[in-house]
Amino acid sequence: MAIQKPEGTEDLLPVDERFYRHFVDTAARVFGRYGYEPIETPLFEQTELFVRGIGESTDVVGKEMFTAISGNNLKTLLDGGKIRSKSRLSLRPEGTAGVVRAIAQHGLAPQGGAPAKLMYAGPMFRAERPQKGRLREFHQVGVECIGADAPSIDAEGIIMLMRFYEEIGLPRENMRLLINSMGDEACRPAYRESVRSYIMEHASDMCEDCQRRADINPLRAFDCKEEGCSAIMANAPKIPDALCDSCKSHYEQVKAYLDAAGIEYIEDPTLVRGLDYYTRTVFEIQVDIEGMGSQSAIGGGGRYDGLMKEVSGKEAPGFGFAIGYERCKIALEAAGVEVASQKQTDLFIACVDDSTRAAGFMLAQQCRDAGLAVEIDHQNRSLKSQFKLADKLGAAKVAVLGPDEAANRQVSLRDMATHEQQPVAFDELVSAVRA
Amino acid sequence: MAIQKPEGTEDLLPVDERFYRHFVDTAARVFGRYGYEPIETPLFEQTELFVRGIGESTDVVGKEMFTAISGNNLKTLLDGGKIRSKSRLSLRPEGTAGVVRAIAQHGLAPQGGAPAKLMYAGPMFRAERPQKGRLREFHQVGVECIGADAPSIDAEGIIMLMRFYEEIGLPRENMRLLINSMGDEACRPAYRESVRSYIMEHASDMCEDCQRRADINPLRAFDCKEEGCSAIMANAPKIPDALCDSCKSHYEQVKAYLDAAGIEYIEDPTLVRGLDYYTRTVFEIQVDIEGMGSQSAIGGGGRYDGLMKEVSGKEAPGFGFAIGYERCKIALEAAGVEVASQKQTDLFIACVDDSTRAAGFMLAQQCRDAGLAVEIDHQNRSLKSQFKLADKLGAAKVAVLGPDEAANRQVSLRDMATHEQQPVAFDELVSAVRA
Repeated sequence: MAIQKPEGTEDLLPVDERFYRHFVDTAARVFGRYGYEPIETPLFEQTELFVRGIGESTDVVGKEMFTAISGNNLKTLLDGGKIRSKSRLSLRPEGTAGVVRAIAQHGLAPQGGAPAKLMYAGPMFRAERPQKGRLREFHQVGVECIGADAPSIDAEGIIMLMRFYEEIGLPRENMRLLINSMGDEACRPAYRESVRSYIMEHASDMCEDCQRRADINPLRAFDCKEEGCSAIMANAPKIPDALCDSCKSHYEQVKAYLDAAGIEYIEDPTLVRGLDYYTRTVFEIQVDIEGMGSQSAIGGGGRYDGLMKEVSGKEAPGFGFAIGYERCKIALEAAGVEVASQKQTDLFIACVDDSTRAAGFMLAQQCRDAGLAVEIDHQNRSLKSQFKLADKLGAAKVAVLGPDEAANRQVSLRDMATHEQQPVAFDELVSAVRA
Repeated sequence: MAIQKPEGTEDLLPVDERFYRHFVDTAARVFGRYGYEPIETPLFEQTELFVRGIGESTDVVGKEMFTAISGNNLKTLLDGGKIRSKSRLSLRPEGTAGVVRAIAQHGLAPQGGAPAKLMYAGPMFRAERPQKGRLREFHQVGVECIGADAPSIDAEGIIMLMRFYEEIGLPRENMRLLINSMGDEACRPAYRESVRSYIMEHASDMCEDCQRRADINPLRAFDCKEEGCSAIMANAPKIPDALCDSCKSHYEQVKAYLDAAGIEYIEDPTLVRGLDYYTRTVFEIQVDIEGMGSQSAIGGGGRYDGLMKEVSGKEAPGFGFAIGYERCKIALEAAGVEVASQKQTDLFIACVDDSTRAAGFMLAQQCRDAGLAVEIDHQNRSLKSQFKLADKLGAAKVAVLGPDEAANRQVSLRDMATHEQQPVAFDELVSAVRA
């Protein structure tokens, strides 16, 4: 029986892979203008990193991580048992923890120095139930800026993200930028407690999940999809009213920078994002395009001033965001943006009979050495069938090589669009194809 | 305590990552001229794929695979136990099996159609003991061509690989191309038996590993590093004498194509490569540069006409090779090739005092929108300290923005190489920086 790809994964076939590279290259180009440089961290990390960085109570760490073991060490796992053991490795469920770990380990954001500005792109892994736009292996592009707490970092990052979406082709009128401030360790605990009390007061009318959330992470109740819960949470205490002066000032400055840059946003006091580590600025980009379904968030992030300490023991403020590639692609397709590009072949060399195949092979090498994309037949096809193949490979031109032509060191060059045909010497072939 | 990266992995910091991208982009460009298109398959596959495709008796599958489980399914593993279970997932130890699986699953090489020519690049995983040039997470670039058995495919692939090494900058005089033919199902069994008998005859003078290999895979004894074994194997029967007519003809044609293209090679009748699936053509590229140590193989591959059937149940001939990125990089460094590229910043905007920071921020956005790589200070640095930072960021030019300049909508633009300084209007800044 044929072996299939694992559940919840996708192969990026050539048309997909070309678009994915275009997506990542566009991000690298745009973010590079803002000083962000590329980094690549391992696909797996010590499980402990995600436990500390993302939080054990999150679904991501608690339920959705792939934990990896070597064939050799199977016995260790069977004996050891506990998933928290420090020698355990997990496939990364997101990109931030690894990049922050690398910045700490290599001292990329020294005290008093410039902030480290880094960009990553690649696969992430979550053992979720697969559905449209939600895979077990999916791709993210993201940035992290470690070492500066200024609101200008947050604003610059949000502006840069919006510029990326424009450059990749998402229509501005279909996008919505939501922003909020989550407060910090000075003001969030009291706010959190007020939400907890509010949920407890209304517990009898709320779902079991929300009742459970009240103690672990009451702010998550804002994300509950149950109608009863949403209605109740609409009247819950809102964070903007609870921010301390310093968080309020930070938030005002971020908004002032966005206003000055002409970036439109919606303040959403219920936006809390999925992960525990955010402080102050959080934001999310949603698209509203027919055909996108419920998966409307295509990117988001925020400030995480406490994360570096969790990972390395040293304090350093941080900011970052991630873009979901697969959801972005769905949005682009829904918006009618061209995301597939066909194979390009500059020249197909067709051999009239077997006597010219060796000469055709050599001619192909010479044209390739000169930089052309060239195809030849390797399966002893008839001339007619070679023309069919050339058509299928998207060849712009076909060089026909018969015994007479070969003897005169020339080909008959046919333009596949105009069907014009002319004799061209071997030495002139490259320039004739380029013309 | 700070969490470190997992043993045997490397972070690709910006200088490394820029070179890695250059490496992969160069491969994509060169291979694209030969009709190879990019593909990306999942980082993990069903364990069964590697068991069938690579062979359970190999070290790679038997000892070195990372087998992945989800947090949720830990219990399944503990109960289930056996690593061969079909629901088990493994991190890919090499790229061929996954690409061949994808070609079968998506019907990319239909019977009678053109061969599928695909290229992959990315991380691979082996739970080996880490050493220089041998990592647990390492990077490979490779190609697979499925659906054609012509010797011109093998020759074209080898020529293309040598062109890649030239283009990436490896000196031709330091490289050695070894080639051999491994025969096929018609002639290899008898040859294998003759080597087995030969080993049995000399068993008492050979190491235990070789004695054990005699039955499982006698050809591996050619790779034994023990001096006694090497001496004995030097006189063992050699495959070129045992090839059937059809394999001999295939091998002769490959060599004829290489000769015609001016590619130098050494015929090595003891070259058997590490993996079981090769048939007919095998080859390996070694470098001989001081500082490379024993890790001299930087790429290799061959024909594998039986692999597709193992993976999908359908017959289709195949050919491919893989390039080890980390070893290539060591070779390039040993050869003195420049592999590090510094950060490029077109412009740093320095603010004389706090009153101009908002204007500086806006000016930075405008220059970035015009395509320049621009940095500003986010940490309230003094002017002197901003110049130091600009220098560190490799800024070609610095725009100084004081209150007077801001009022006149101009900056004082300094060339960091010539130290010349001149007033430039905001609207002229982009063209002045580009000049």
